[in-house]
Amino acid sequence: MRTQVAIIGAGPAGLLLSHLLHLNGIESIVLESRTQAEIEATIRAGVLEQGTMDILNNAGVGARMQAEGALHHGIELAFGGRRHRIDLTELTGKAITVYPQHEVIKDLVAARLAAQGQLLFEVNGVELHGVDTAAPSVNFIHRGEAARIEADFVIGCDGYHGVARPAMPGQGRQDFKRDYGFGWFGVLVESAPSSDELIYARHERGFALVSTRTPTVQRLYFQCDPADHVDNWSDDRIWAELHARLENNEGWRVNEGHIFQKNIIGMRSFVSTPMQSGRLFLAGDAAHIVPPTGAKGMNLAVSDVALLAQGLEQFYRQGSEERLQGYTAAALKRVWRAEYFSWWMTSLLHTFADATPFQREVQRAELECVVSSRAMATALAENYVGAF
Amino acid sequence: MRTQVAIIGAGPAGLLLSHLLHLNGIESIVLESRTQAEIEATIRAGVLEQGTMDILNNAGVGARMQAEGALHHGIELAFGGRRHRIDLTELTGKAITVYPQHEVIKDLVAARLAAQGQLLFEVNGVELHGVDTAAPSVNFIHRGEAARIEADFVIGCDGYHGVARPAMPGQGRQDFKRDYGFGWFGVLVESAPSSDELIYARHERGFALVSTRTPTVQRLYFQCDPADHVDNWSDDRIWAELHARLENNEGWRVNEGHIFQKNIIGMRSFVSTPMQSGRLFLAGDAAHIVPPTGAKGMNLAVSDVALLAQGLEQFYRQGSEERLQGYTAAALKRVWRAEYFSWWMTSLLHTFADATPFQREVQRAELECVVSSRAMATALAENYVGAF
Repeated sequence: MRTQVAIIGAGPAGLLLSHLLHLNGIESIVLESRTQAEIEATIRAGVLEQGTMDILNNAGVGARMQAEGALHHGIELAFGGRRHRIDLTELTGKAITVYPQHEVIKDLVAARLAAQGQLLFEVNGVELHGVDTAAPSVNFIHRGEAARIEADFVIGCDGYHGVARPAMPGQGRQDFKRDYGFGWFGVLVESAPSSDELIYARHERGFALVSTRTPTVQRLYFQCDPADHVDNWSDDRIWAELHARLENNEGWRVNEGHIFQKNIIGMRSFVSTPMQSGRLFLAGDAAHIVPPTGAKGMNLAVSDVALLAQGLEQFYRQGSEERLQGYTAAALKRVWRAEYFSWWMTSLLHTFADATPFQREVQRAELECVVSSRAMATALAENYVGAF
Repeated sequence: MRTQVAIIGAGPAGLLLSHLLHLNGIESIVLESRTQAEIEATIRAGVLEQGTMDILNNAGVGARMQAEGALHHGIELAFGGRRHRIDLTELTGKAITVYPQHEVIKDLVAARLAAQGQLLFEVNGVELHGVDTAAPSVNFIHRGEAARIEADFVIGCDGYHGVARPAMPGQGRQDFKRDYGFGWFGVLVESAPSSDELIYARHERGFALVSTRTPTVQRLYFQCDPADHVDNWSDDRIWAELHARLENNEGWRVNEGHIFQKNIIGMRSFVSTPMQSGRLFLAGDAAHIVPPTGAKGMNLAVSDVALLAQGLEQFYRQGSEERLQGYTAAALKRVWRAEYFSWWMTSLLHTFADATPFQREVQRAELECVVSSRAMATALAENYVGAF
């Protein structure tokens, strides 16, 4: 097989890149190890910045997001038994949309298939060759048969555990990482929303987050040991923990309901640089991970591939590699701001096993400042909505 | 001896409190272990918030500060080879005055002596008695002779190493602390200022700070090992270190000159609560320490004693202890905000031996945000000038 751009991974990054290239008349093939049903059922983040919405809308894949996504104009910070609203729109003029990542994936898959895009599922044994030449290739096994793609470029959108990043030359690479030592226990619950807006709660028992998926499904999280198992947590124990962390002096309580999914995710920060080598480029989780507290993961993936699409368009239209050469620098500027913000939100709201009493009081004082200083609230809001 | 308020310590807190009480017709005696010449030569902080200036001016001790202090409308943050100005006045409407603490002390001593205030130097062996009764007393030795003061109140303004805090009942006390593991090497230099405004510099070799004392004296600092000795640092070595940390891509250099004082101070954060018990109250460094990065130390001492003066005035005029009872809560609100800010400025600008590459990049990203986001710059400026 021959194509212009071989894309490894059919997450939001790979699918959107393929679609953006298609809109510019550039051909690509997307390789994905899972089935279509699996990628469309993978529960992940759900907060989209205005800039992300703009890119999806401009690419013609935003119709269902606009119809079904929930526009949020604020978030709440809960601590010390009280809730404090951060009015995102009043502070920044922008808003966010809650629309789950797997719904974005469904929309992108539908768009790719409608455009007869080449999207190969159940691919394994992917090997990259010649990525430092002008003629890279990808060997793989598709439903049991060996195959090969010859391309001009290979884009690794295959996540933290993918094959693309390890295929980059080791010399000059630098990885930056932080493991927070805790995770989030996430549940999906059949019930009406407990709150119109997301509630980020700091509690001495640990962080908790109230969010929604649909008018009948809530998404709730609480900070946990990343090595814990969901089987250790009965529904009763989960509700007791959520009530303990979320109930407050104002009489508000979280709505209970049938818990139909439980999972635990570890919290880490990770950046791998450079994000390119020769004709191989990385985008999204393949190059960087943020803890979900700042709701930045999918937004970063989208902004990475928007930059790559611009670079590839310039290459094919004008024969210039200037934008592609500048990809790492351009992407990292936004990545590091998001890494800072995600680290900051995580530090502000979670309990840390090694925190001294001084550090806990400073955390509380910083939260007090955020909700009492318009400047600090604006800084949070700007970073949250991506208004920079 | 009999007085209304016995004050331990003739730093800015003790002297100002005595003067504020005098202006309200309340009698006090100040006990100080050092000589007048010693306290008037103790080199400390020099940044006064507008609120501090207002209190000193209203107390009639601000004339020389207004004449000789330097009003600063901005500070500079230096990193990555460039300097970035934070325009305090444009962002907050306020400014700060650089006027050294020992000059404030000279002004306060002069005011107390002119008013025939009782100010005993070279006092040692101070012991507090009956502080949980309505008739506390202080035993001490003054220039070799045993003496005793009976008072209504005892106020501990005797610093971190003083006798007042250890005299508080242990039950219910909680101390919060952080030792940063580094110090500041400070030098006084005979030379014209290198910069009109303070420069806070982050450098991979460590933090450095350029400030001024007078038109002919600079005050320069650089982060160091707190266990180091000034004798290990020749003038040449000091200048080499300052040039390495401060010289930048813009061709600016720090002015050299004769170094006539060198000292090393450790950096720590400390808060002791409650700040009162019965008839004993703590103010300033006796109750809390901030690292000097946020320039908050003297300002906190002044705001503590302004609260105490109001409380004592209410007690003597109206017979009500309401304000005095609320002293700890009122003072700690401001103290914790300053502790947060001082910790934040320290964390933002210093090198930490245990910082991972990820943490160093997050620190750089946060600095980039501060100088590129008006909201974040405003938050820094508000905290720096005390506009809250």
